[in-house]
Amino acid sequence: MRNKEQIAERFKSLQDRICSGIERADGQGLFQEDKWERPGGGGGRSRVLTHGQIIEKGGVNFSSVEGITPIAIQKGLSLPEGQFFATGVSIVLHPANPHVPIIHMNVRYFELDNGMYWFGGGIDLTPHYIDQEDAIFFHCALKQVCDQAHPSYYDRFKKWADDYFFLKHRNETRGIGGIFFDRLSENEEMTFDQIWNFVQSVGDSFTDIYTQLMKKNHSKPYDNAATLWQSLRRGRYVEFNLVWDKGTKFGLDTDGRTESILMSMPPIANWQYNYQPEAGSAEHQTQTLLKKGIDWVKQ
Amino acid sequence: MRNKEQIAERFKSLQDRICSGIERADGQGLFQEDKWERPGGGGGRSRVLTHGQIIEKGGVNFSSVEGITPIAIQKGLSLPEGQFFATGVSIVLHPANPHVPIIHMNVRYFELDNGMYWFGGGIDLTPHYIDQEDAIFFHCALKQVCDQAHPSYYDRFKKWADDYFFLKHRNETRGIGGIFFDRLSENEEMTFDQIWNFVQSVGDSFTDIYTQLMKKNHSKPYDNAATLWQSLRRGRYVEFNLVWDKGTKFGLDTDGRTESILMSMPPIANWQYNYQPEAGSAEHQTQTLLKKGIDWVKQ
Repeated sequence: MRNKEQIAERFKSLQDRICSGIERADGQGLFQEDKWERPGGGGGRSRVLTHGQIIEKGGVNFSSVEGITPIAIQKGLSLPEGQFFATGVSIVLHPANPHVPIIHMNVRYFELDNGMYWFGGGIDLTPHYIDQEDAIFFHCALKQVCDQAHPSYYDRFKKWADDYFFLKHRNETRGIGGIFFDRLSENEEMTFDQIWNFVQSVGDSFTDIYTQLMKKNHSKPYDNAATLWQSLRRGRYVEFNLVWDKGTKFGLDTDGRTESILMSMPPIANWQYNYQPEAGSAEHQTQTLLKKGIDWVKQ
Repeated sequence: MRNKEQIAERFKSLQDRICSGIERADGQGLFQEDKWERPGGGGGRSRVLTHGQIIEKGGVNFSSVEGITPIAIQKGLSLPEGQFFATGVSIVLHPANPHVPIIHMNVRYFELDNGMYWFGGGIDLTPHYIDQEDAIFFHCALKQVCDQAHPSYYDRFKKWADDYFFLKHRNETRGIGGIFFDRLSENEEMTFDQIWNFVQSVGDSFTDIYTQLMKKNHSKPYDNAATLWQSLRRGRYVEFNLVWDKGTKFGLDTDGRTESILMSMPPIANWQYNYQPEAGSAEHQTQTLLKKGIDWVKQ
């Protein structure tokens, strides 16, 4: 049965568990918390970790907001007037070592007082250097989570992520994608409980997936050229989030808490005019894999 | 009399003169040119200077494009179907020393085959540290250029710049503004020639104004704290350009040449969660001046 307070409580506990798991894997960094209140109703807990051993800068945010649906949200989501409720957990982690990928996760629930509701979310990975083994591991783990819920979910949500995390002005994907879904609600195939269980499984899968990637890669050696490449890829991350990401745009347009929204921004990003990696280099190899439709599970 | 080829030629020569002037003042950096062609008609000359003595990264771009008005441009500018022509010069310079301000200039001309046309443009300054003397010098120089054309121009265009170069999500201006104007065409007060002369004076004023600011500030000492602050202010510059700047958005939406559009991006930008400069510091002092409506001419 739907119970928004319970959903928010589960998300809050998810935030707690993810933060502990990341701190344990990092071995040095600790999340600092800012509690905030939304003038129109609700609030959140922003948690940021900086200068960890593995994570250079990252945020794990929980929010649960409610009140009269702001006009901008009504228009943006084509909703009727009324009261809304929204809760979710959002994560972006920027590692120090360029061989550890950037990761993003979001799980969210939205409802209106007219009875409408939906879930959204996903996990996607942005390696500075694409490691085929890691990419396969990542996609297989997500497929497993999806397959437990519905046989069509992985294919649908993997394609959705490819299409969503795409920099049209660069004709390249942000990274190797993952899964992305929105406006999931009960239908003839899935009950509310089944969808809610799926969303919780996505959230619960995060720590194990990412800490494995942290552990495997964080002590790989790297040189200045790799640090430069990392800063340029972070520049692309900024471009995606500020130009194309609907959530960021929506938050900034609707007077969201700017510092929480922009916790996704990296440390030390860089732009060089018309940078082209050398043919045959690892950087060039990564660039050729920044495209839609790669079937990592079948590699 | 209106002659679009002549306008484009003058803009091209303006690009040449500005590049020479900046190279001379820099004393080390040289602009590298990329000529490009637009598939639908026209093209441009992108010029980028990196690792100068004073300019760390900067671009001075000329373009002159034409053809069938793309649907996105028609919609964006509420225009009828037909042929368009657009030419202009765009500049962004990011200096190495945090005491030298970032500068932006644009002059542009647009016409349609139905007889509509207009000029747009402006110059604005984004100091990492606001120096009152420099701010007064900068605004007085722009006022002089404006006053020669029309007694109302400075006040109108200064306010327009304050309103335009504003980060709504931060409730702060990008820098100390300058002048901004758009859709200028002949009316009962100003002929075509008078407006075109004004636009040329704006372009011609650029080199002298900015090289004075370069010379005055480039050898001031600075420490790591100032470099950090500079990188955070560059982060805000990125936020403005990718979230709010209509020209950038328009270019990226309409399949413009990405590398030319994003030559405005800085080297080494940074984001720190909820960074607050110490009360009473120079950084804090600058932050208090990032607001609309400061009358620098009367200071």
